[in-house]
Amino acid sequence: MELTIYLAGQIHDDWRDELKDKAERKNFSINFVGPQENHQLSDSIGEDIMGQQPGKVYRDEAASSINNFRTQLLLSKADAVIALFGEEYKQWNTAMDASLAIQANKPLILIRPESLVHPLKELSNQATVTVETIEQALKVLGYVYE
Amino acid sequence: MELTIYLAGQIHDDWRDELKDKAERKNFSINFVGPQENHQLSDSIGEDIMGQQPGKVYRDEAASSINNFRTQLLLSKADAVIALFGEEYKQWNTAMDASLAIQANKPLILIRPESLVHPLKELSNQATVTVETIEQALKVLGYVYE
Amino acid sequence: MELTIYLAGQIHDDWRDELKDKAERKNFSINFVGPQENHQLSDSIGEDIMGQQPGKVYRDEAASSINNFRTQLLLSKADAVIALFGEEYKQWNTAMDASLAIQANKPLILIRPESLVHPLKELSNQATVTVETIEQALKVLGYVYE
Amino acid sequence: MELTIYLAGQIHDDWRDELKDKAERKNFSINFVGPQENHQLSDSIGEDIMGQQPGKVYRDEAASSINNFRTQLLLSKADAVIALFGEEYKQWNTAMDASLAIQANKPLILIRPESLVHPLKELSNQATVTVETIEQALKVLGYVYE
Amino acid sequence: MELTIYLAGQIHDDWRDELKDKAERKNFSINFVGPQENHQLSDSIGEDIMGQQPGKVYRDEAASSINNFRTQLLLSKADAVIALFGEEYKQWNTAMDASLAIQANKPLILIRPESLVHPLKELSNQATVTVETIEQALKVLGYVYE
Amino acid sequence: MELTIYLAGQIHDDWRDELKDKAERKNFSINFVGPQENHQLSDSIGEDIMGQQPGKVYRDEAASSINNFRTQLLLSKADAVIALFGEEYKQWNTAMDASLAIQANKPLILIRPESLVHPLKELSNQATVTVETIEQALKVLGYVYE
Amino acid sequence: MELTIYLAGQIHDDWRDELKDKAERKNFSINFVGPQENHQLSDSIGEDIMGQQPGKVYRDEAASSINNFRTQLLLSKADAVIALFGEEYKQWNTAMDASLAIQANKPLILIRPESLVHPLKELSNQATVTVETIEQALKVLGYVYE
Amino acid sequence: MELTIYLAGQIHDDWRDELKDKAERKNFSINFVGPQENHQLSDSIGEDIMGQQPGKVYRDEAASSINNFRTQLLLSKADAVIALFGEEYKQWNTAMDASLAIQANKPLILIRPESLVHPLKELSNQATVTVETIEQALKVLGYVYE
Repeated sequence: MELTIYLAGQIHDDWRDELKDKAERKNFSINFVGPQENHQLSDSIGEDIMGQQPGKVYRDEAASSINNFRTQLLLSKADAVIALFGEEYKQWNTAMDASLAIQANKPLILIRPESLVHPLKELSNQATVTVETIEQALKVLGYVYE
Repeated sequence: MELTIYLAGQIHDDWRDELKDKAERKNFSINFVGPQENHQLSDSIGEDIMGQQPGKVYRDEAASSINNFRTQLLLSKADAVIALFGEEYKQWNTAMDASLAIQANKPLILIRPESLVHPLKELSNQATVTVETIEQALKVLGYVYE
Repeated sequence: MELTIYLAGQIHDDWRDELKDKAERKNFSINFVGPQENHQLSDSIGEDIMGQQPGKVYRDEAASSINNFRTQLLLSKADAVIALFGEEYKQWNTAMDASLAIQANKPLILIRPESLVHPLKELSNQATVTVETIEQALKVLGYVYE
Repeated sequence: MELTIYLAGQIHDDWRDELKDKAERKNFSINFVGPQENHQLSDSIGEDIMGQQPGKVYRDEAASSINNFRTQLLLSKADAVIALFGEEYKQWNTAMDASLAIQANKPLILIRPESLVHPLKELSNQATVTVETIEQALKVLGYVYE
Repeated sequence: MELTIYLAGQIHDDWRDELKDKAERKNFSINFVGPQENHQLSDSIGEDIMGQQPGKVYRDEAASSINNFRTQLLLSKADAVIALFGEEYKQWNTAMDASLAIQANKPLILIRPESLVHPLKELSNQATVTVETIEQALKVLGYVYE
Repeated sequence: MELTIYLAGQIHDDWRDELKDKAERKNFSINFVGPQENHQLSDSIGEDIMGQQPGKVYRDEAASSINNFRTQLLLSKADAVIALFGEEYKQWNTAMDASLAIQANKPLILIRPESLVHPLKELSNQATVTVETIEQALKVLGYVYE
Repeated sequence: MELTIYLAGQIHDDWRDELKDKAERKNFSINFVGPQENHQLSDSIGEDIMGQQPGKVYRDEAASSINNFRTQLLLSKADAVIALFGEEYKQWNTAMDASLAIQANKPLILIRPESLVHPLKELSNQATVTVETIEQALKVLGYVYE
Repeated sequence: MELTIYLAGQIHDDWRDELKDKAERKNFSINFVGPQENHQLSDSIGEDIMGQQPGKVYRDEAASSINNFRTQLLLSKADAVIALFGEEYKQWNTAMDASLAIQANKPLILIRPESLVHPLKELSNQATVTVETIEQALKVLGYVYE
């Protein structure tokens, strides 16, 4: 069975590559999708396409509409969502993608370090599974194939 | 026309009282609901009801399930949602409530200071309206009655 | 039985008042709602609430988000929609409100002059009923009470 | 990933061919669908299939039901919608298709010239992305593949 | 608890009055709604409102759109549906209303004489309850209040 | 584009074969599905699988549940529905399948002879297209591919 | 705020009366509904209304359709569900009502003794809150009003 | 036509293998999915992935979240569900999976021995088909292909 999994979460390190590599080595038949991982591109894409905007607020508004087009399309194709929270950054996009998945009744794996248990407790309680590491999330995916 | 509005957002100050007072003075026929505003109670409610849990993670898990029961019930009753982000705290519950409203097709007013424009840009772009102050959010509500 | 009817359509003349007056004289127990009928206010509401914007496009964007908040909220409360097309103006908001009602499975009465039969034929075919005058639309509403 | 995109909008020029050509040259794996582009056929299809009707209104009604069958079927297959507004014509079908996509939660790219900013402001505000040219819309699609 | 029940079925005799009378005598707090029971009006309503049509097919088309407006509106208000089949007539409206209720997940009581068991077997199997008399249908309603 | 079309309607003659043959000759890439066409099997399937039942009513109940399993499964796979009404029989299954398709928002082509215009007027008005012959229905399908 | 709560669970003791009494003493504005609590009536209601059936299986089938009519109607009216599992009986109706609530996105409180933790673990994990006593369930309801 | 069928029910014997073997011999093009059949693994999977938990209740909670991830994902992929009840065990997961399928409008075949007719009567009445043996369930599946 082929699955499509949306990888929500920060785009400041290469956690998605790590996860994809491991999934490939386990021969899971999974198509991973996710947000734009080139941070600078994700911020400039509005002006890149629509031209210069009158200030930062409008530059952000333009970029965000294109990022949302990408997310809405790929999320609708996904069979499940993995959302990873790290210890830095505000990560409201991660919270948004995870919550859109919950309300759309898509199974959700939440990955978060122990230090974030308290501020993420309500979101974690609504996720289908909560784990602490990428390796654990992969094992949950693997359990579907067992 | 009577409306029910869910007030998502931080529970560390009295912004809800301010908003309710102003709405009352304007004679809006609005029933405001929202999360538990007693922060300590919101953290202890799991153990208050279910008894002592084996550590902080489980104490949080117990409390969060009861907070989610409250939120899911009141959100389902709401005609619209106002979500306020402040400059402190992680506020992932605010992001979650706002996103659940978006996916459930409920109109959403986002209130956030200018300093948060960038990290909230994708959520703001999906909100129905984004403003910067409580007073502005009230004016949007008032516009429905005009 | 009390009904809420959303009156979509142009805001350049007083067709809604005419319809409401006639409905009142027939003692229909109907609560009519609709878009902001003060055209100038509907254009300026963005800047009225959020302050000056950097140009017309942004002024329009600000106003439209608040008009959409109003429409989304009132449309969700409505049991049925009446959409009136006149011979002037582009009236894309009317087409939008009518189509949102169709997709949301709300009964829709379309009012349009004979001169608009051709350009409105696909929308008319998806409406529940199409008539040519306000008086006819009222008779359709009246038939529900007979 | 293979996508199906519905191209809503006027059928009086060859903008769809331009867009398809460019998409092909970029090797996007996209299946484009849309309304009947042969304008005369789109007007006569009712009488072509059902025989002569008693006048123009009935000829239009017959044609529109078959055009709607095509649109409803292809729209349900589409992962996203591009809706192009030009400076001529009433284009209520474009507004209808775009609004059906919005209510059905399908991502929507709106293309409109600057001259139409004001009359399209509410629809634009509900679209996922709004741009001014076909080239820009293609870049938004391309961003999904990056 | 107040309920709204839609009474689908033939409009050639006074079975609805019989049912309403009995319900009133049992003090059920039920608001009964249903199709237009004046058969002649139900056939002529299109031309009554829209004026003369070019033949019977178009007269029927006009009337049916207004009958459907009524049904769609009242069915959306109903908590449950009772659909009565008699031994005469084609009764395809009854089958349609009952099936719309099934797909919309509204509880459905089917009333049909023993002679119609065979041709109605698939519809009966999808109904929530099937009985043979109005009296039995009322007892099912009464059971909700017990 | 490959389509799945459900063919609702009477199973007493070979109209489906005629339609499939013609579709094949036109090289439409369509997978046709539909109810069990072996009438005797469709009546006996309950007792064939579950053993003898205590009378005709229960024999019908057993068969209908299995026929409904087939229809529910195949209808959920269908992109559109064609429902054919002939001049004989009660054909309530045809009315049911057509109405389930309407409420599930699937495009519907209704085929009915002129003699049935009046009793089918409300169902016809809710269908996406109504025609009189199989050949016409095929032309509507063909229009999607043009 | 007035709430309607469906009380799913065994009908062999008076746990509902205990819960209603306590809720009344706390002045909660709650309308409690639930299945038929007269066990004998719940078993005989099919034959009571439809007459004698040809054996136990058919007697049960007749009764169950009427019990399901009641449950489907009352569950659709409920804002939330409380499902109580006791140590005896198979209680598959309780599991069914709880699961229908989960899939319909209604908040669910599960009450079960510690001895049932293991066999109910997957259902408990999908419930919004799980507690062990009626008193605890009431406290969860009370928390909504705090 | 290729189908995906979810096999809900006890995991203490090899009934799924029997069913799959027979389906294969009949050349049905069916992809069967279902819960984890390794009972011990299904109980330990939480601690296997997340590490030791503070007691049985938490061990069960951890395992159940991963079992639910699997079920939610596979159930969403399924075209229909077969739920088998045996004479032993509480089988609340079987009741849950069957009920989730009912509410999600997926066709459901219930298999249960005669001895369970009474306690399963309401669930059976909501299933699309109820049979007593695996062989009969296969014949129902086969009927879809006939």
